[in-house]
Amino acid sequence: MTEIVPAKSTPLLTVAGAQAIVRQHVRPLCPEPITLTSAVLSHVLGADVLSDLDMPPYHKSMMDGYAVRCADLSTGKGRLQIVEEITAGQTPKKTLEKGQASRIMTGAPIPAGCDAVVVVERTTLDGESWVRIADRPPKLGQNILPQGAEMRSGDVVLKAGTILRPKEFGILATVGKTTVPIHPSPRVAILSTGDELVEPKERPDGAQIRNSNGAMLVALVSGAGGQPRYLGIGRDEAARLKPLVCDGLKSHVLLLSGGVSAGKLDLVPGVLREAGVAAHFHKVEMKPGKPIFFGTAIRLGGGTPTLVFGLPGNPVSVLVCFELFVRPVLQRLRGCVDAGPHFISAILSADFSYRTDRPTYHPARLEASSTGWKVRPVPWIGSADLRALTEANALMLVPAGDLRHRAGRTFEVLSLD
Amino acid sequence: MTEIVPAKSTPLLTVAGAQAIVRQHVRPLCPEPITLTSAVLSHVLGADVLSDLDMPPYHKSMMDGYAVRCADLSTGKGRLQIVEEITAGQTPKKTLEKGQASRIMTGAPIPAGCDAVVVVERTTLDGESWVRIADRPPKLGQNILPQGAEMRSGDVVLKAGTILRPKEFGILATVGKTTVPIHPSPRVAILSTGDELVEPKERPDGAQIRNSNGAMLVALVSGAGGQPRYLGIGRDEAARLKPLVCDGLKSHVLLLSGGVSAGKLDLVPGVLREAGVAAHFHKVEMKPGKPIFFGTAIRLGGGTPTLVFGLPGNPVSVLVCFELFVRPVLQRLRGCVDAGPHFISAILSADFSYRTDRPTYHPARLEASSTGWKVRPVPWIGSADLRALTEANALMLVPAGDLRHRAGRTFEVLSLD
Repeated sequence: MTEIVPAKSTPLLTVAGAQAIVRQHVRPLCPEPITLTSAVLSHVLGADVLSDLDMPPYHKSMMDGYAVRCADLSTGKGRLQIVEEITAGQTPKKTLEKGQASRIMTGAPIPAGCDAVVVVERTTLDGESWVRIADRPPKLGQNILPQGAEMRSGDVVLKAGTILRPKEFGILATVGKTTVPIHPSPRVAILSTGDELVEPKERPDGAQIRNSNGAMLVALVSGAGGQPRYLGIGRDEAARLKPLVCDGLKSHVLLLSGGVSAGKLDLVPGVLREAGVAAHFHKVEMKPGKPIFFGTAIRLGGGTPTLVFGLPGNPVSVLVCFELFVRPVLQRLRGCVDAGPHFISAILSADFSYRTDRPTYHPARLEASSTGWKVRPVPWIGSADLRALTEANALMLVPAGDLRHRAGRTFEVLSLD
Repeated sequence: MTEIVPAKSTPLLTVAGAQAIVRQHVRPLCPEPITLTSAVLSHVLGADVLSDLDMPPYHKSMMDGYAVRCADLSTGKGRLQIVEEITAGQTPKKTLEKGQASRIMTGAPIPAGCDAVVVVERTTLDGESWVRIADRPPKLGQNILPQGAEMRSGDVVLKAGTILRPKEFGILATVGKTTVPIHPSPRVAILSTGDELVEPKERPDGAQIRNSNGAMLVALVSGAGGQPRYLGIGRDEAARLKPLVCDGLKSHVLLLSGGVSAGKLDLVPGVLREAGVAAHFHKVEMKPGKPIFFGTAIRLGGGTPTLVFGLPGNPVSVLVCFELFVRPVLQRLRGCVDAGPHFISAILSADFSYRTDRPTYHPARLEASSTGWKVRPVPWIGSADLRALTEANALMLVPAGDLRHRAGRTFEVLSLD
């Protein structure tokens, strides 16, 4: 039998230390031009976007009503001759002279001579071509948005690093930016390992279980803005695992689940080494997820190295490791400046006793209250128990020790929603 | 010239009243079976999902180590004969007798006779087939997860109405639910109207502007879980608008922007009437977005009626109306039980004077602090000013009046992120 090596007594790498190692190996993917219609929410701009025009492009009426001259309405009341009707999209032809007004629609350019717009609700038509106005004395520029008030030609309207939300799509359309420089979505290969696994469509028998990590990682990766590629289940045999690993190394990121803990069949680190992956760490002082492996490999086709994470096989460990290590990597590759993870402080809502030998990311329920965030741990029977997480929407960091935590204490919490 | 009808003095419909009217016309779309691999994050389950197996399917080791009998290790120390090696995916063949142990890997089934697992770190091999153990006295069931502890066959593991997040994908895979009952994503047609509009790829001249609402609504709809279909720009002419409207009425929802305010070219409500749309309201007491129109039409092909929103033409009005009315509708159609909008209470961080004649949804910056949410208004020069919203991540509800709001006051705020 192969020797099982007992754990060494050297202190384990901390989560913060491990995150710092990962960060050293991650650079944003080079921006590529894509069409505005192919861009999606959460894409990140790879360059500043400039306006090619003034907005509004002309002095614009902000209301439906009448374009007037303030001088004609010093009391707020008057009867003016209607000389023109200007709708949005039309260019005014007449200049307002003394005693004249033009009907004007929201968004239309104001005519020459006009220095205020009176809203239609303060007017009544008097025959075909006269209007009576009964309002407060108009203020200069009232209901007029000056040319360039929103943006001027040449202005940087969106900065590099901006995450595209719906309003950014509106701004890109406004300035005619139909080809957008975007950090591409990282391609992420997903490989589940383990002789005990069968695909979800199969009926497990005996000691088999269905592969839940594959489907969960596909969802996690797409939710984090990556392009997942599921490679299937790798069996616990180096010769069968290696070609799948080599395929996965063509992606920006390779995620494996299973096969990294101390058991003799946990052969992933060895296969990775054979496939040219340089190991940067293996084991981190955390629970669950302690056996996590991180390495890098020169990527076929050049560019950034492939980042390789060997995640433990238990689904809850996978989720925790993804949130602490993989999501921030995907954010950084996608060009996000502030890649996280973003913990928030929350108040424990009831006493909680817990014994653990490592800092533990415990499933928890996080809720907003009028006095800030409240958190309570969700019952949890072990790292495979995905169902316990149905109620959970967060992970709370519980320190090592056999401790009684009093209600009111502050915990660092990572939201999962 | 056509008469411009001044606003009536009857009180306007409130936002809450308008939302209640909309709610009466919305039912979740009927669930349809889709494959697990086609399901996406944010899809909502249309029926309970039951487990078809126990998880774990057997008494399972939670650690790498040795399956033992507690009776053999009453002091925590001992030397046991190794009779078998059990990896995940294997079925144990040997029953543990007095003085015997089996090597066991995380996730593997425990052998008959075993009542505890000792972790590998507390053991040393003694030749090929003996192991020395030096640990605390084992507890009954230590490191063993009993069969069915996570779920039992027949258990409801996910309830109807559950929003699919990554862990739900893991649970669906675990129970072999490869065809999932899902409320379909609503199909949403988007039609921008206005003679002043040109497509983003064109160069506007004179009184033209680019259509920003189309791209923004496409992004809003897809971010809200709908399937957007952009119908292009409808010109301000009933004969040209009507076929586009009729095309849009084939969808679950038709969103128009522009053409609903009091100006004479605002002909959308008339065209909608001709196309068979029953109007339920037109104008709501809010700023921006007052001219919003809502109606319904019998949908070709049957099923739920088509919901029709005529949104104002200004981009900020579009955004506000979308968040207050359209997003909750899409949520409800998608089967969400709690469809929103979800306002949160936030503390004003600095004094703010504002005059408005209607309840106003003002662009604002919302930030979490250790004592709860803080909000501050973002400078805003009018409802067309999308760029002002770059800094904003929320809308704060400011009451009507000419008021000075003191720092520390609580406002209701709607997050846009």
